[in-house]
Amino acid sequence: LLSFTGRWLLISAAVGALAGTASAGFLVALDWVTAWREAHSWILAALPVGGLLVGLLYHYWGQPVEAGNNLLLDEIHAPRAVLPLRMAPLVLLGTLLTHLFGGSAGREGTAVQMGGALADQLTGWLRLRPHDRTLLLIAGISAGFASVFGTPLAGAVFGLEVFLLGRLRYDAILPSFLAAACADWVTRAWGVGHTAYPLLAAPAQFSLLGLGSAVVAGVVFGLTARVFAATTHLIRGFFKRWLSFAPLRPMLGGAVLTLLVWALGTTDYIGLGIQVIVRAFAEPLPSYAFALKLLLTALTLGAGFKGGEVTPLFFIGAALGNALAPVLPLPMPLLAGMGFVAVFAGAANTPLACLLMGLELFGQQGGLYIGVACVVSYLFSGHRGIYGAQMVGQSKH
Amino acid sequence: LLSFTGRWLLISAAVGALAGTASAGFLVALDWVTAWREAHSWILAALPVGGLLVGLLYHYWGQPVEAGNNLLLDEIHAPRAVLPLRMAPLVLLGTLLTHLFGGSAGREGTAVQMGGALADQLTGWLRLRPHDRTLLLIAGISAGFASVFGTPLAGAVFGLEVFLLGRLRYDAILPSFLAAACADWVTRAWGVGHTAYPLLAAPAQFSLLGLGSAVVAGVVFGLTARVFAATTHLIRGFFKRWLSFAPLRPMLGGAVLTLLVWALGTTDYIGLGIQVIVRAFAEPLPSYAFALKLLLTALTLGAGFKGGEVTPLFFIGAALGNALAPVLPLPMPLLAGMGFVAVFAGAANTPLACLLMGLELFGQQGGLYIGVACVVSYLFSGHRGIYGAQMVGQSKH
Repeated sequence: LLSFTGRWLLISAAVGALAGTASAGFLVALDWVTAWREAHSWILAALPVGGLLVGLLYHYWGQPVEAGNNLLLDEIHAPRAVLPLRMAPLVLLGTLLTHLFGGSAGREGTAVQMGGALADQLTGWLRLRPHDRTLLLIAGISAGFASVFGTPLAGAVFGLEVFLLGRLRYDAILPSFLAAACADWVTRAWGVGHTAYPLLAAPAQFSLLGLGSAVVAGVVFGLTARVFAATTHLIRGFFKRWLSFAPLRPMLGGAVLTLLVWALGTTDYIGLGIQVIVRAFAEPLPSYAFALKLLLTALTLGAGFKGGEVTPLFFIGAALGNALAPVLPLPMPLLAGMGFVAVFAGAANTPLACLLMGLELFGQQGGLYIGVACVVSYLFSGHRGIYGAQMVGQSKH
Repeated sequence: LLSFTGRWLLISAAVGALAGTASAGFLVALDWVTAWREAHSWILAALPVGGLLVGLLYHYWGQPVEAGNNLLLDEIHAPRAVLPLRMAPLVLLGTLLTHLFGGSAGREGTAVQMGGALADQLTGWLRLRPHDRTLLLIAGISAGFASVFGTPLAGAVFGLEVFLLGRLRYDAILPSFLAAACADWVTRAWGVGHTAYPLLAAPAQFSLLGLGSAVVAGVVFGLTARVFAATTHLIRGFFKRWLSFAPLRPMLGGAVLTLLVWALGTTDYIGLGIQVIVRAFAEPLPSYAFALKLLLTALTLGAGFKGGEVTPLFFIGAALGNALAPVLPLPMPLLAGMGFVAVFAGAANTPLACLLMGLELFGQQGGLYIGVACVVSYLFSGHRGIYGAQMVGQSKH
């Protein structure tokens, strides 16, 4: 047991160093790309070109790693071969192109794939057996998630929760926590910070009316997560059916996105949308904001652009919580925070990781409302989340 | 699904009302009993009499419910019959007698048994099917735990984590969270408060040295949890072998305890020990404090007094963390907080519930250190914790 612990301390430190460094570089590049786009908004008109570039990139070099997150999950379920190292630079480049030209996407997919692919390179060097390799992949996922959002506890539990719906992989708990802690430390040691969201002040007292409201909000969040996952799958299927040459898909998707953004007359709904997320805690947003972000993100990712789903899900949830504030007797910042993590909890089927993320980002004051919202959202989001390769370990109810 | 949610909202509210009210009454009575004992310390000399009373109580009326927490867990694993309602008053009375005469015990066992037994009475009234009854029992455990400590999130996850080592029961997640939230609300609505521990200020920055220290501390916490569980089982076995008439066991145990406390010359190590726990966050304690509490608690519970293990485990952990402060480069309050939840995490094999408890009690600042300590302690505490009826769902490593 001591040798198990010592070994995983070393391996987790290595995984953390790799994933944390990758996340740090990614976050810096993403900031740069986003700032450049905001200063040169004409680039949006070239979104179809960006789509074509991403499409060609993956068509010629990326076919073995195209499944992305799902490939990672599949390898955990049924190990076949070490993940190609190219997964890391390809997803990095694809995501940066997506954000440079103005697609609506996130970043957890990128960080998780970089973390997983880099971690898996240790499999050969250390001659790990299959079971240890599984732990290594889970640790890589945890490390990537932890470092890209600056939430080590959520990252650790995300890795344990994500691949099997309704199960939590306790035998990987040590590697996950250590790798998440190291990766987060490494990213911060590179001097890369994270968005600070406001700590929530709890409502004066927890009340039964508040609890009922949290349940209602959770139902809305869960159904929204379900719609998001279904819409993304639908759009992806549509593009696959009608365009057999894969690189054309993001090109056409990019053209539709450009038209949509032009028709909307605002760039609020492209990119990560961090500024809008922060506003959701402070002032009323349009009540349809969540729906627009949902549509644009499903279109971006369904068409084949790269990136993650999670930051857009934060946006969708925070905007939806914001929109529920006039209807439900809970404060707007609390509802925004509940939606922020709960829509994601439903879409990824990771309620405990999302509860921990809520505690890490917003403090423990609103923890109970956040927990109830995450749990109810998880329950109402159906059995098919955003990750197609996630298996059902135990039915939800 | 809506009917599932609506039904469990109602059932959970009922469970919460029952368990929360029981916990409120229990906490008030416990305060009263503890204050009386502190004002009349001569009562300690009568501890053997108290032991005899508890023993006779359970011998004549309590045989079907003697297994206590283990009976609850057994019913979840293999449902047989509705728990006798008398479990609730018997464990309440037994615990109050234990604390009145100065045994060293806790309160979670009492709250959990009251919550479980009261909840289970709904089985007949509502004509629940076996699967629903399992969810009901889990909700009762969550509700009892949540309301006695004022930590609803930890209570909810404790119920999901406790009965099967290395598994988490996701299909009970909604009933658990709702019942825990309601029970906590009900206890507070009765005007019953909880000990406020100091919120931790994090060390300036998370460091690799700090992470290594958390791992070392976690190993020490986990081994201590192992020693605690083994000592309790050993003493219980010893008494069972040598005294066939059960009521004599706590009588003899009480006599030994009286002598020990008299020899020690301090009452710091009897009862709940809340005052010492609070001191562990503020000033150095004797380095052997944790060992004395461990011994006295194992003797109290092993001999057949009633109560729980958890508050003494908080004491043992906080005192041990306090004692590690001169050796490890982490602040004393943080080490005390880490030990507080991590020894319990190892002894009960519930790392995630304990992590959440750490976040609820001490704030999110020290969360990562607390998480690592809980996980490592869980790993090093062996596969046989304080609950004999806990089954191994998945090996720890």
